[in-house]
Amino acid sequence: MVTDPVRIGVLGRGTVGGAFVDLVGERADAVEAATGRRPEIAGVLRRSEGDFDAIVAGSDVIVELMGGTDPAREYVLRALREGKHVVSANKQLIAQHGDELFDAARQAGVQLRFEASVAGVIPVIRVIQESLAATEITKVFGIVNGTTNFILTEMARTGASYVETLARAQELGYAESDPTDDVGGADAAAKMAILARLAFHTPVGLDDVSFEGIENVRPDDLAYAKEFGLSLKLLGVAEREGDGISIRVFPCFLYRGHPLAPIEGPFNAVMVEAPSITEITMSGPGAGGIETASAVLGDVVSIVSGEAPVHAPRERIEVVSDVDSAFYLHLEVADRPGVLAAIASVLGDNEVSVKTVVQRGLGDDARLVMVMHQAAEHRFYAAIEDIAKLEFMRAPPRAIRVIEEEFV
Amino acid sequence: MVTDPVRIGVLGRGTVGGAFVDLVGERADAVEAATGRRPEIAGVLRRSEGDFDAIVAGSDVIVELMGGTDPAREYVLRALREGKHVVSANKQLIAQHGDELFDAARQAGVQLRFEASVAGVIPVIRVIQESLAATEITKVFGIVNGTTNFILTEMARTGASYVETLARAQELGYAESDPTDDVGGADAAAKMAILARLAFHTPVGLDDVSFEGIENVRPDDLAYAKEFGLSLKLLGVAEREGDGISIRVFPCFLYRGHPLAPIEGPFNAVMVEAPSITEITMSGPGAGGIETASAVLGDVVSIVSGEAPVHAPRERIEVVSDVDSAFYLHLEVADRPGVLAAIASVLGDNEVSVKTVVQRGLGDDARLVMVMHQAAEHRFYAAIEDIAKLEFMRAPPRAIRVIEEEFV
Repeated sequence: MVTDPVRIGVLGRGTVGGAFVDLVGERADAVEAATGRRPEIAGVLRRSEGDFDAIVAGSDVIVELMGGTDPAREYVLRALREGKHVVSANKQLIAQHGDELFDAARQAGVQLRFEASVAGVIPVIRVIQESLAATEITKVFGIVNGTTNFILTEMARTGASYVETLARAQELGYAESDPTDDVGGADAAAKMAILARLAFHTPVGLDDVSFEGIENVRPDDLAYAKEFGLSLKLLGVAEREGDGISIRVFPCFLYRGHPLAPIEGPFNAVMVEAPSITEITMSGPGAGGIETASAVLGDVVSIVSGEAPVHAPRERIEVVSDVDSAFYLHLEVADRPGVLAAIASVLGDNEVSVKTVVQRGLGDDARLVMVMHQAAEHRFYAAIEDIAKLEFMRAPPRAIRVIEEEFV
Repeated sequence: MVTDPVRIGVLGRGTVGGAFVDLVGERADAVEAATGRRPEIAGVLRRSEGDFDAIVAGSDVIVELMGGTDPAREYVLRALREGKHVVSANKQLIAQHGDELFDAARQAGVQLRFEASVAGVIPVIRVIQESLAATEITKVFGIVNGTTNFILTEMARTGASYVETLARAQELGYAESDPTDDVGGADAAAKMAILARLAFHTPVGLDDVSFEGIENVRPDDLAYAKEFGLSLKLLGVAEREGDGISIRVFPCFLYRGHPLAPIEGPFNAVMVEAPSITEITMSGPGAGGIETASAVLGDVVSIVSGEAPVHAPRERIEVVSDVDSAFYLHLEVADRPGVLAAIASVLGDNEVSVKTVVQRGLGDDARLVMVMHQAAEHRFYAAIEDIAKLEFMRAPPRAIRVIEEEFV
């Protein structure tokens, strides 16, 4: 039986585009064995050459690997409206224009897949959309940016500063020449917006995600963390909070034994929690060229294998910002009697309780490093605002969240 | 728009069957939102009541939760031949009768799904069959039996014997009253046969899997392991070896930093390796009632959402048994000059090289604990056969495999 090939039009020919075209050649037999149809590249649109309309007209599936939202948004919309399935690896496109793109796919009755847009080779989108389609997910969280995880791992290992380590990451190709989106948390925020949308079946935009980056992490934060058996990660968290949801990106210490604590270097990891599954943890390399190409090819195979309905959001859920967190608190104070009591009293007045304290003398000054139990974030922030005003403080308080639950 | 419900016939009403029926009730709205069709239980076949033919006739999907192969095999074959989709959580059924069942599903043009048969809630079957359908998988391995992982974790934590710890696991419900299949490795072997079949597109039967269990693990193995920074797991491994494949289950030490080293208690974890993805690691609870029911419901949703082609094996690949492994070797010897030299010489003659040695005096005797570099297993076994014959040996040598690659 001879069947028609699957004609694939590729938009963008950077590292990922090149890896994808090569992979289609290498795995054509396997795709044919899995789907009954042989893939072939119908055309590649580069910045300076290629005719978009001709490529779309000659393709069954459009693979968008351009990055950015302009002109990617317009090209993807036009492809969908002409009845072509689309695979995209573009997290900013999906995070910022998801509603419009999903509407277009639904109206045209075609598939829009984007596994490669979040967490490299980890198939978290398929698992949430398919394995857990009927599951009441309560929380999705993890390490979704490989650049920052590489930097934090290296800072902990070498004791070097953030600036030195970023330069090293750039030399090694783990950070871009303009690293702003990665180190500032915007990249992770886009990915968490996508995961929250899928997990909670609600429209989520980039504005719904609050984020902090790792630019202010200091080597001595990491040195003290070791005393408590903690490791520092840039976490993305999307979770149900009462009747609403909360979506945040922030640096966070994890206790040894937490499933995300051993994730080092440029790796990503995502955990999904729900009452009926307890939790699933998935980890793997963040996006390299071949890994991203492999995730894109998996989406192409799924499109050829059958239909995946594109769902409308089920409801609009409020985004809440105040949640309970535990914190690590680092204070530089004058070394004299009554200081610890004054600080403890401020914390107690704000209903924040202390789990562990380490105090160190530094000549006339002292350093207090504390780990708190969980408390509402607004209470903790009120407490450190009050602490900052105490006359014996030698520097502004420094706070980092901590995951304090023991695992298993 | 009103659509027909999905009528589900359930075979078996034990813990999992009860959890599944409850879950269908709780998640009916979510299934309808995801698929457009509302699930309803058309009938439940218990050991002593229910009419199989009537249940099949009144169902769109049959969910087999009976366990064992008789009469499950006959019931599933009949359901498939009558054109019903089937979801099964039954690893022995799929491992022992996979060829026959897949043929029947192909001929009838229906789906046969079995995510719950391996590794609890971890969606490893979907990831291998769908995300990685066009990927050249080189290795699938992991911890696929929660009972043995619980026992090994407890032995390491408490220093108690295997027999004491098994009794505790039985009290807590982590081991069955007849634990033979779990502790002897047969349960893990059936799961690895299923994973190997899917990963390598080749028919694999239970006879193709070599397995050892954990019955002979001693507390002092675990105590010494700690000196080397190792943790002990019952591993299942399916991998390409030259032009063939190897499928094995065996107790194995892992270095700290290996992704499977932190998997403790009744949890499962599976890693998949391929050139184009490097590796994916997935972990979660082993099979409890609600977790298994959740995996079964995910399969039902997939069946309602669309077609998944059932593929014929692509080729028959030879199963090889001799592979390279590193070993931990524990020797009780007379404490006198020349003993270490004699042992090292036997190992060297067999081309097995030593990575680490710890020697301890015990009165007139001594204990040697060694970790080897990788070598062909037949060479290592030849060496320990020769070592066992040395006149200064005080007890038979004890050997356990070690994963020696450092991670990342």
